[in-house]
Amino acid sequence: MSPQRIAPRSAAGFELRAGQLLTVIDPEGVQVADLLAFSRDDPREVISNGRTFDYEETITLTTGNRLWSNRSNVLLNIEADSVGRHDFLLTPCSEQTFRHFYPDKPVHRGCFGNLAEALKPWEIEPDSIPVAFNCFMNVPVDEAGKVRVLPPVSRAGDSVSLRAEKDLIIGLTACSAYDSNGGSFKPIDYQITD
Amino acid sequence: MSPQRIAPRSAAGFELRAGQLLTVIDPEGVQVADLLAFSRDDPREVISNGRTFDYEETITLTTGNRLWSNRSNVLLNIEADSVGRHDFLLTPCSEQTFRHFYPDKPVHRGCFGNLAEALKPWEIEPDSIPVAFNCFMNVPVDEAGKVRVLPPVSRAGDSVSLRAEKDLIIGLTACSAYDSNGGSFKPIDYQITD
Repeated sequence: MSPQRIAPRSAAGFELRAGQLLTVIDPEGVQVADLLAFSRDDPREVISNGRTFDYEETITLTTGNRLWSNRSNVLLNIEADSVGRHDFLLTPCSEQTFRHFYPDKPVHRGCFGNLAEALKPWEIEPDSIPVAFNCFMNVPVDEAGKVRVLPPVSRAGDSVSLRAEKDLIIGLTACSAYDSNGGSFKPIDYQITD
Repeated sequence: MSPQRIAPRSAAGFELRAGQLLTVIDPEGVQVADLLAFSRDDPREVISNGRTFDYEETITLTTGNRLWSNRSNVLLNIEADSVGRHDFLLTPCSEQTFRHFYPDKPVHRGCFGNLAEALKPWEIEPDSIPVAFNCFMNVPVDEAGKVRVLPPVSRAGDSVSLRAEKDLIIGLTACSAYDSNGGSFKPIDYQITD
């Protein structure tokens, strides 16, 4: 298929068959895309940052690393990555995080609300949304464990490609938060290839 | 109540009322206790490492830090901590992690299986078990993001105390894995005070 566009501050939900490759593209640069993956056959199986950190033995995930589920299965393999900096620590921005971090700015339902909406056709409840794999999100952790959210280092056209190990339901956003993308709201593109 | 003992390689499930203080004690030293907390009124609300990292802005949690839920509510406040080194990155050890990390050793259902059993009375499904707050677990993250599991720095009698912000269902283990406690299996004690 040709690349699809996710409009700024929105999300898409779609299915990805086992063996297909999903490429997430930052068309303008310095933007974040929150990625969720659920098993299509039983959406109670979902990507897990903890199981991924367990088996990959790192919190820095790039080409060659795999994203694992809460049932200890590989859901996605990272096959290519032109950026090398993503985040799997922090949760999708939400109405509550907007109130907390941006008390002077208009409240938005954020990636969390957008994902909840996009995943409704598969009857996935908002409470079942875990930590997303945040493509291009730049979250350094210092020696004391403190985390900061910096603008992504991705440039226009950068991408990360993930191959499905199982039939999956995917949720994918063009991020709505101020800090994660340097203060501007931009689209995200994605492409599915066999 | 007087302190309760969790036998080596087992778990306990119990309720903690809002305002009560739970003290988790390492009676012999160098042991790990995986802690889960669910809202008693609606167990779909559960502690979330991601939301906690979001709001606390650190992965190093100690006195003064709070453990947040997937619904952006504080479930527990860390009121005292004689160790200062715990983990909220890695998942409870399980049959699958035993097969992966200890292929030559007998398989055990691990903290995951023990928690699933301990939480059955509240009809909490194994798929709903998230990353636990792993009291005393020593998981340094290096500059490259690599994680290691080292023996805890806790000594006999060390403890961490957490006060409930809501009525909670708690799951608590005496860890079953080899690496997390330096290769021996020991009990964990806990005490609830008002």
